[in-house]
Amino acid sequence: MNRIITLTTDFGLTDGFVGTMKGVILGINPNATIVDITHDIAPQNIEQGAFLFANAAKYFPANVIHVVVVDPGVGSARRAIAAREDETLFVAPDNGVLSSVLRPSSSVVQLNKPAYWLPRVSNTFHGRDVFAPVAAHLSLGVPLEALGDPIDNWVRLPRAPALRAGDEIAGRVIHIDRFGNIITNVGEEMLSGMDRAWLVVRIGGRVLRGVESTYADAARGELVALISSSWHLEVAMRDGNAAEALGVRIGDEMVVGLDRE
Amino acid sequence: MNRIITLTTDFGLTDGFVGTMKGVILGINPNATIVDITHDIAPQNIEQGAFLFANAAKYFPANVIHVVVVDPGVGSARRAIAAREDETLFVAPDNGVLSSVLRPSSSVVQLNKPAYWLPRVSNTFHGRDVFAPVAAHLSLGVPLEALGDPIDNWVRLPRAPALRAGDEIAGRVIHIDRFGNIITNVGEEMLSGMDRAWLVVRIGGRVLRGVESTYADAARGELVALISSSWHLEVAMRDGNAAEALGVRIGDEMVVGLDRE
Amino acid sequence: MNRIITLTTDFGLTDGFVGTMKGVILGINPNATIVDITHDIAPQNIEQGAFLFANAAKYFPANVIHVVVVDPGVGSARRAIAAREDETLFVAPDNGVLSSVLRPSSSVVQLNKPAYWLPRVSNTFHGRDVFAPVAAHLSLGVPLEALGDPIDNWVRLPRAPALRAGDEIAGRVIHIDRFGNIITNVGEEMLSGMDRAWLVVRIGGRVLRGVESTYADAARGELVALISSSWHLEVAMRDGNAAEALGVRIGDEMVVGLDRE
Repeated sequence: MNRIITLTTDFGLTDGFVGTMKGVILGINPNATIVDITHDIAPQNIEQGAFLFANAAKYFPANVIHVVVVDPGVGSARRAIAAREDETLFVAPDNGVLSSVLRPSSSVVQLNKPAYWLPRVSNTFHGRDVFAPVAAHLSLGVPLEALGDPIDNWVRLPRAPALRAGDEIAGRVIHIDRFGNIITNVGEEMLSGMDRAWLVVRIGGRVLRGVESTYADAARGELVALISSSWHLEVAMRDGNAAEALGVRIGDEMVVGLDRE
Repeated sequence: MNRIITLTTDFGLTDGFVGTMKGVILGINPNATIVDITHDIAPQNIEQGAFLFANAAKYFPANVIHVVVVDPGVGSARRAIAAREDETLFVAPDNGVLSSVLRPSSSVVQLNKPAYWLPRVSNTFHGRDVFAPVAAHLSLGVPLEALGDPIDNWVRLPRAPALRAGDEIAGRVIHIDRFGNIITNVGEEMLSGMDRAWLVVRIGGRVLRGVESTYADAARGELVALISSSWHLEVAMRDGNAAEALGVRIGDEMVVGLDRE
Repeated sequence: MNRIITLTTDFGLTDGFVGTMKGVILGINPNATIVDITHDIAPQNIEQGAFLFANAAKYFPANVIHVVVVDPGVGSARRAIAAREDETLFVAPDNGVLSSVLRPSSSVVQLNKPAYWLPRVSNTFHGRDVFAPVAAHLSLGVPLEALGDPIDNWVRLPRAPALRAGDEIAGRVIHIDRFGNIITNVGEEMLSGMDRAWLVVRIGGRVLRGVESTYADAARGELVALISSSWHLEVAMRDGNAAEALGVRIGDEMVVGLDRE
């Protein structure tokens, strides 16, 4: 039985929305263990939600239930879904926020059985009225198939991967973390076969030479390129905020090349 | 036995105050399940605390213990109370923060038995020294009546409900959420018998026509009136921040009327 | 068995780092109870982390595992440690962040047994790859001594206590809390034998007379010196923000004396 339920939302912690979802879950299954991944996804930013959720989810045990609510279409005709991939269960709006974790082989149902929702469903807070109760019922052993009819045309986010052509990789910024570290969509595996000492990273009008191993390889206040904890190329500033220093924002382009001089 | 303890405070999450309360609770009852409702009540704003707490509390199961600490009078002669309403228990300073959840029939005691507090009580942090240990003892089955002497003159907040006169309702803003959505004190039930398509909402110098069903009924960047998840009249901006756009703040007045043209 | 694991970090709650650590812990011990102390330590501020952690930790039961990750040296040659003091276990980088809770008699080991870490260790997130799994294994009963070799030269922070000379105490600001209350390093015990009514506190260019018992002893908007909940001399403003009003910052000096007039 999947007894652990994780929550990822853009609700913030100020308004009590997350606490309310926990109340609904515990009302249905008082023995659920609820874990917050983050509630500070930028409001309605599905792509950022998908990225941060997928990074965290891969470090959870398999038999959990992940609830992901970044839901700009709440109350509209957008569908709500639950899914199973191996032993792991997912509950979310059908807007692509699960793109990075579902596979073509995943079992996906459209949530259309109100018996598993709260009796009264608002038009603005399905996190409370639909997703929380559905997750709680799953944690009690209700089978996925009872929650709705199977679908296979669930929404995938358009993928915009970094592109490698010869010794040059064209990427972009996909996240900036609390420390101002800049995370790009250049996965570590794209650097295979390239000598890291001779790599050149162009970003925010600056040129960084070499991909280092650790923050400590830079002097205080100096910029450094390295591999992030999510295994992407990252640009950081030792004891400082790289994104502010470079004026870089999510979506900005960057390039990795080889120094030929 | 009420094993679930919820916490609502204005302590924020930065200083470790909330973690400290959890340490005290788990020291007395290691099997308590502790759930955060919110810790971002505006400092010392009793009315906002009462509103956000009551919205969340109604979605919890009945057999829980709610601890609510918004406590500008801490260390003064203000009383501390615990209460029971049906199966639900409450612990809070006696300043009206429980106004929305207690009834004239509720059992209320003044906390005056130091045996259930920490041995040393500070003048500035009764959340840790009084309210957390009292809640933990309740979760172990200590009866309410053991915690103090019964009172019936506990503090009620002055109520300032919206007023309906004929087809006009005079209300005000009681909360602005993380998304900038403006929540008013006009409850959905006040709109009964009025045709929502013909309602006119006057707020922040603007006039909105119609009360819609969902955010998606507005175009991007457009203002929309609808029913909030707390079942109040709400003014939102599709994919934007209504409170900033309108320059509206908590306490501002607004009016609902019928379009006669 | 120590089943409760607390987390104190400077990771913030936005990026999912803390949720990821919880996933790792629950993957190893699904029955662990995880409690957040705070995740808003100022980035890489070891001294503030040590102060806030120690304040909270003393209110937890003895048989817990405290994980403290404020780790500017992550990925460098800095050591990682686990420690036992009485029944309490600790896991942290070896940078002094445990200074206030360890004793010369504490058992301390350097974490150098990768069998208790995640299979792949990043250079930037030992909270996930080393500290979380080590804490989870401790919660399953793995003995401290299995995690690494004993050391006794673990890092202590240089202590900079307030100094009393006759009737004058020279101190400084060590923390400013969410309410703008100014916490100094003048412990309550340093005031013993001095008449609080005649004490004078000099801070931020202002002179406050008397150390009061409670916030309520001041008029609204007035500054007041009192004893904080961590039992230090504190300067607060009734219903206001003392640090802003005084322009005081962490590290600023202050003086306590006796009024001789």
